Amino acid sequence: MARIPILKLGNNLFVTVQVDVDDQLASTLQDDLMTQIVATGAKGVLIDISSMEIVDSFLGRMLAQIASMSRILDAEVVVVGMRPPVAITLVELGLSLPGVRMALNVDRGIAMLGEALTVGGGRDGGDHVAG
Amino acid sequence: MARIPILKLGNNLFVTVQVDVDDQLASTLQDDLMTQIVATGAKGVLIDISSMEIVDSFLGRMLAQIASMSRILDAEVVVVGMRPPVAITLVELGLSLPGVRMALNVDRGIAMLGEALTVGGGRDGGDHVAG
Repeated sequence: MARIPILKLGNNLFVTVQVDVDDQLASTLQDDLMTQIVATGAKGVLIDISSMEIVDSFLGRMLAQIASMSRILDAEVVVVGMRPPVAITLVELGLSLPGVRMALNVDRGIAMLGEALTVGGGRDGGDHVAG
Repeated sequence: MARIPILKLGNNLFVTVQVDVDDQLASTLQDDLMTQIVATGAKGVLIDISSMEIVDSFLGRMLAQIASMSRILDAEVVVVGMRPPVAITLVELGLSLPGVRMALNVDRGIAMLGEALTVGGGRDGGDHVAG
């Protein structure tokens, strides 16, 4: 299983990262995700990292890159399910994930994407972090 | 990562199986899932197997068991995202997954669970396969 599955969930795409992500897998995920955003016309991407016990600078950078790429394709990225120790480690590493929106769980993530859609317009405001 | 994450999605629980499932992991998943059904009061469970390229009799039995256990706890199980070759292999193996409902993708699975809820009552009709 050399790729992370991307699921369609209403108007959004949904990705659960359960395995250790290396260079190759990260690159495949980015490619697949961008292809799917264009193919499905998705307006939002939910990335669940609740299985991840460790988020290092590599994964942090991958998430930030996915967020930037998606924004260019007019889709908003919300990362959900981050564990408390991961948040602590990220900040200790000096990574604040600029441009990546966070939500506590999938339901809130979907709500956040829904709001972004209904409010509309204000999508290009730059670096939103957590709400 | 010795467990498969269980996500809450509205009134349903959502599980994506991305890794090879052995005895230990299957047992942990069943335990976790039943605990979560009771804890969250979920009325439905979606199990996504779109990453699985092989579903053998072991995994088939695990899915059927999860469906039976969940039904006892008054939650309906829908398996989504089965690949065509997997369906072919399952039938060739003589496994028709009795009691397990199937849906093509997550959206349809959620719709199916929604219907089961609104129709209500007719939940104990026995072996439904695919719609």
